[in-house]
Amino acid sequence: MIVIMKPGATKEQVELVVKRIQKEGLDVNIDQGTEHIVIGLKGDVRGVQDVPFNTYDGVEKTLKISNTYKLTSREFHPGNTVVDVDGVKIGDGSFVTMAGPCSIEGLEQILECAKIAKAGGAKILRGGAFKPRTSPYAFQGLEEEGLKYIRQAADEFDLKVITEVMDEGHIEMVAEYSDILQIGARNMQNYKLLQSVGKTGKPIGLKRGIAGTIDEWLNAAEYIAVQDKSPVIFIERGIRTYETATRNTFDLSAVPLIKKLSHFPIIVDPSHGTGVWDLVTPMARAGVAAGADGMIVEIHPDPKNAWSDGQQSLNEENYLKMMQEVDILTAAMKQIKEIEG
Amino acid sequence: MIVIMKPGATKEQVELVVKRIQKEGLDVNIDQGTEHIVIGLKGDVRGVQDVPFNTYDGVEKTLKISNTYKLTSREFHPGNTVVDVDGVKIGDGSFVTMAGPCSIEGLEQILECAKIAKAGGAKILRGGAFKPRTSPYAFQGLEEEGLKYIRQAADEFDLKVITEVMDEGHIEMVAEYSDILQIGARNMQNYKLLQSVGKTGKPIGLKRGIAGTIDEWLNAAEYIAVQDKSPVIFIERGIRTYETATRNTFDLSAVPLIKKLSHFPIIVDPSHGTGVWDLVTPMARAGVAAGADGMIVEIHPDPKNAWSDGQQSLNEENYLKMMQEVDILTAAMKQIKEIEG
Amino acid sequence: MIVIMKPGATKEQVELVVKRIQKEGLDVNIDQGTEHIVIGLKGDVRGVQDVPFNTYDGVEKTLKISNTYKLTSREFHPGNTVVDVDGVKIGDGSFVTMAGPCSIEGLEQILECAKIAKAGGAKILRGGAFKPRTSPYAFQGLEEEGLKYIRQAADEFDLKVITEVMDEGHIEMVAEYSDILQIGARNMQNYKLLQSVGKTGKPIGLKRGIAGTIDEWLNAAEYIAVQDKSPVIFIERGIRTYETATRNTFDLSAVPLIKKLSHFPIIVDPSHGTGVWDLVTPMARAGVAAGADGMIVEIHPDPKNAWSDGQQSLNEENYLKMMQEVDILTAAMKQIKEIEG
Amino acid sequence: MIVIMKPGATKEQVELVVKRIQKEGLDVNIDQGTEHIVIGLKGDVRGVQDVPFNTYDGVEKTLKISNTYKLTSREFHPGNTVVDVDGVKIGDGSFVTMAGPCSIEGLEQILECAKIAKAGGAKILRGGAFKPRTSPYAFQGLEEEGLKYIRQAADEFDLKVITEVMDEGHIEMVAEYSDILQIGARNMQNYKLLQSVGKTGKPIGLKRGIAGTIDEWLNAAEYIAVQDKSPVIFIERGIRTYETATRNTFDLSAVPLIKKLSHFPIIVDPSHGTGVWDLVTPMARAGVAAGADGMIVEIHPDPKNAWSDGQQSLNEENYLKMMQEVDILTAAMKQIKEIEG
Repeated sequence: MIVIMKPGATKEQVELVVKRIQKEGLDVNIDQGTEHIVIGLKGDVRGVQDVPFNTYDGVEKTLKISNTYKLTSREFHPGNTVVDVDGVKIGDGSFVTMAGPCSIEGLEQILECAKIAKAGGAKILRGGAFKPRTSPYAFQGLEEEGLKYIRQAADEFDLKVITEVMDEGHIEMVAEYSDILQIGARNMQNYKLLQSVGKTGKPIGLKRGIAGTIDEWLNAAEYIAVQDKSPVIFIERGIRTYETATRNTFDLSAVPLIKKLSHFPIIVDPSHGTGVWDLVTPMARAGVAAGADGMIVEIHPDPKNAWSDGQQSLNEENYLKMMQEVDILTAAMKQIKEIEG
Repeated sequence: MIVIMKPGATKEQVELVVKRIQKEGLDVNIDQGTEHIVIGLKGDVRGVQDVPFNTYDGVEKTLKISNTYKLTSREFHPGNTVVDVDGVKIGDGSFVTMAGPCSIEGLEQILECAKIAKAGGAKILRGGAFKPRTSPYAFQGLEEEGLKYIRQAADEFDLKVITEVMDEGHIEMVAEYSDILQIGARNMQNYKLLQSVGKTGKPIGLKRGIAGTIDEWLNAAEYIAVQDKSPVIFIERGIRTYETATRNTFDLSAVPLIKKLSHFPIIVDPSHGTGVWDLVTPMARAGVAAGADGMIVEIHPDPKNAWSDGQQSLNEENYLKMMQEVDILTAAMKQIKEIEG
Repeated sequence: MIVIMKPGATKEQVELVVKRIQKEGLDVNIDQGTEHIVIGLKGDVRGVQDVPFNTYDGVEKTLKISNTYKLTSREFHPGNTVVDVDGVKIGDGSFVTMAGPCSIEGLEQILECAKIAKAGGAKILRGGAFKPRTSPYAFQGLEEEGLKYIRQAADEFDLKVITEVMDEGHIEMVAEYSDILQIGARNMQNYKLLQSVGKTGKPIGLKRGIAGTIDEWLNAAEYIAVQDKSPVIFIERGIRTYETATRNTFDLSAVPLIKKLSHFPIIVDPSHGTGVWDLVTPMARAGVAAGADGMIVEIHPDPKNAWSDGQQSLNEENYLKMMQEVDILTAAMKQIKEIEG
Repeated sequence: MIVIMKPGATKEQVELVVKRIQKEGLDVNIDQGTEHIVIGLKGDVRGVQDVPFNTYDGVEKTLKISNTYKLTSREFHPGNTVVDVDGVKIGDGSFVTMAGPCSIEGLEQILECAKIAKAGGAKILRGGAFKPRTSPYAFQGLEEEGLKYIRQAADEFDLKVITEVMDEGHIEMVAEYSDILQIGARNMQNYKLLQSVGKTGKPIGLKRGIAGTIDEWLNAAEYIAVQDKSPVIFIERGIRTYETATRNTFDLSAVPLIKKLSHFPIIVDPSHGTGVWDLVTPMARAGVAAGADGMIVEIHPDPKNAWSDGQQSLNEENYLKMMQEVDILTAAMKQIKEIEG
């Protein structure tokens, strides 16, 4: 942490800042520049992060140098964390597909989805039993009934399950049926929820918030990591920008960036990332090439009659075609990783 | 709701769409334009909002015409809703100030804040006992102890209380001490929480989400309104944009816009809206002039030693000066409202 | 400028950075923190702004401390610059209104606009003769014919003229007819144009770019200021964000912020800032209260038949009513400024 | 185009709108819905785009159905336009790389860049002679001297040239030396410049604006296309969002989206798209996989000593490695295109 004084700051102003820093038990380094005096803080600065040095007379700005997350950082854990989802490995260099409908609509529908998902090579079945909807009048999910159906469908086709948990009160219930607990974009900064799911020991699929920065996302993961039980799987699902031609702006740069900053795996969600079914396949391909550890994608046996997100769901034919393309690119990426050593 | 066909869409393609609409129990109107056939849906379209007409061959796009919120809309309730906070009226044409610290730090601090708040003319005391913090290592609030302090301080100075509730499990506790329950920006779309606070009967201060659209905000209010117990007070607190010179971009247009679309009152938060203490006063003034029903503002007896948000908190002197300016503008606005009749 | 080394950076890595700095003729200060070594640069760092220290091994990040603009800054010129538009003062504490149509449509229309503008108390007539339009098929302006009309109309009603110049080739022509040269939002970073208008000696109305940061805007003004001829009038006209309920997000915080950072005056454009005629008046009021030096607003004798921007133009009745309200608030602000001393 | 009346709009209000439409020479279709009357416009609506129907009493909103661009659209020209850059084909299914420095710094430097570019398989040499810089004090380019150097370097290594033209006055000069004229992001809506370069007959590399929507970008291309001389090459270079961890947010969805909406080719710029050299290679790979027709990338023999953009430039080693990876993915994409047939 660094405090930068305004040009012309007085000796007294500098001293007041220095005293405050020393009061917090830290040492200082004073750098007399041509225009600015720069005061460096030495010691564990986490305790003084909230000190409003900006309000001291003569201070121009304060700059944070260290990150506030630790356990999530690559520095703390230089190797990749491989998440083991009851035998399915995420983060080990392979590309894992999670596929399924937006909403679980009934046993038959989710069984059909599981069959299609499996045929394409997916290892994990997705499907929502609790749905966060903009309008209170929209379908809100089948709740526990849906959880039972997705578990049954997954088991029948030897798949694992990922599904969203929206509030603390349902964690235990969702954890009973699901292998991965998903935190939705709207809840990325629902800290009580993060702390609670972090205690389950189940892997947590942490979606990036609708307007979440990379830094906030890493800090949200830290809320889980400090519980020291559950590993995190980052899920890039697009961010909100001024562009309305797509539902979100799919930020694929997040893939190499998160891999640089954190040891946890990252997968991509080209369905929400674009919101338009015929953009899903090219963006799934781009996700593979960007180096993602997998993807989560919406499929439906009959998108025209899906209860939600039909416009971004792939039907069987398009899903299978996408998976064929993904396989070709996965093979190419394997070749590339071998070169990189 | 309107479905627009592509130029050259075939008769068969149009028929498939029409059949689907009719299957949902709605009638259609077909408008043969020069380039596009436009299919209008007649009847209650809320049930077909999720039908992915875009995935039908020959469809170019789907446009929603009706809003999904009802009880929150000005159409439903043409007059202004005046919220009665245990005797303090919000939305009756007056300008109500809520002031206090970001975090409750102790009894002495909140008593001092209450004294200052009162001296400036505030009617409601703010202060956080549960704090949503980006980092798990930052101060998270005094919890119930803090609630007790703020209640005591408010009572001593004949003020009402507003404080944030972050999760369902604490609603009962917070409602015991607070007159208004505040939903923070990160929780604007935490639907379970909205439904639960809506059942308390207490007025709900609903902050706009960090990247919440006006439409999503109105729909979030609808989650509360459908419980038919608690009135809503909208709180504009700035939105996330590319601009980093301020903490958020303070969207004052939301004030007249919400007043046009909804009957519930709206207040502004110039502290979070700017994030910089010396921009708070001009933006508070602008809030009055934009027609807001009040404001919520951060003050601290000693911002330099505040535990959080010190950089955007006003000290006593600046707060009293701001309130003097706000009073002058409130008087001017009264004159303007008389002209408007 | 500060270069921050990664934790664990080697002595050799630090030395390479230091050598590079010294090669550029600057001195260094090395601050050995607990986690990070921080290297401060001493001397005129403008010449090394583009040195990519980030690419040196062991470097974590580089932070710029000084601004790149000088002549535009409040530090360079502590008092307010009052711009004299042929006798009309902008920045002297008064609130100056510029009103007129989006496009000049003919002599009769602009005469009618001038008459209305004058009646409401505007001192300057606006109107576009060159129009930047998204589509090449939209009306592009009457060009020189329009310039003649607006000059004639302004002269008849003793008003000054502001109009946009879109390219270097027309500067001389526009300067012949107009008292202020306006640079539109799309051209805020058209540097050749900025340099050229800066040589005319006419005041330049510099609109903020559609996605211009405060810092870029100040630097754009610097392109004009370095020509040492023309003063700048900043025009806040709203920025592009994710919100679509308004045409732009009107960033009124820019008013006190620009006044803090620069000595040039700033006015607001509530017409483009909102894009909706019935939001213009409340936002004009808010602009006064935020401390703006004036505003530019679109009016039209018959908005329904305006050739462009009809949806955000005020008719005579609404404009006169707005000006009445603006006058009341201007008086209130005068009172406030007297208190502030 | 569709005009939607408010619930409860009167017969007279509808008639006024209808009369206005008919006055413009168009027919109407009136659709009496359950809540809203919807008025459809029939005929060529381009002339009425600017009619502010929203200002008519009883009107709720106006929706545009048709695009305003024509010649740029895929509907107008269903096949792909293959741009021929003096023998190098862009848009024919191959992946063309343009590489070179941000700024041309001298003959030796650009010769060295050309050698490296060629070695990696690039066919086109990039390099700026006119540089748009945020600050007037930053290096602005070698101008004509630079143009001579890049032409000489390209010729020596049998490469084509792409370079930016920033203003009308230099078009002729730049066109003398360059095979492609690049329009920079800041000039995407500099309409006079677009019209002028469109008359040269040279291919135009049209960068997306810093906050340009897909729709505005297509309309900007239309300004070139209506001159009926120069083909367009779209260049996705990232957009401005709230995220600051990367220089821009690289919107790769633009690739399949532009290909769906337009017949002109699109290439990607992972250097500006990310702004960080070690994210360039993964994003270049993602660009190939997204289906781009090529890329433009910044390289430098010695990024640490580059005069500009050093932090996002690849050195020889990293560039050659990236090209190896790009080649592997290009081969994979060829396989995929064969499957797609």
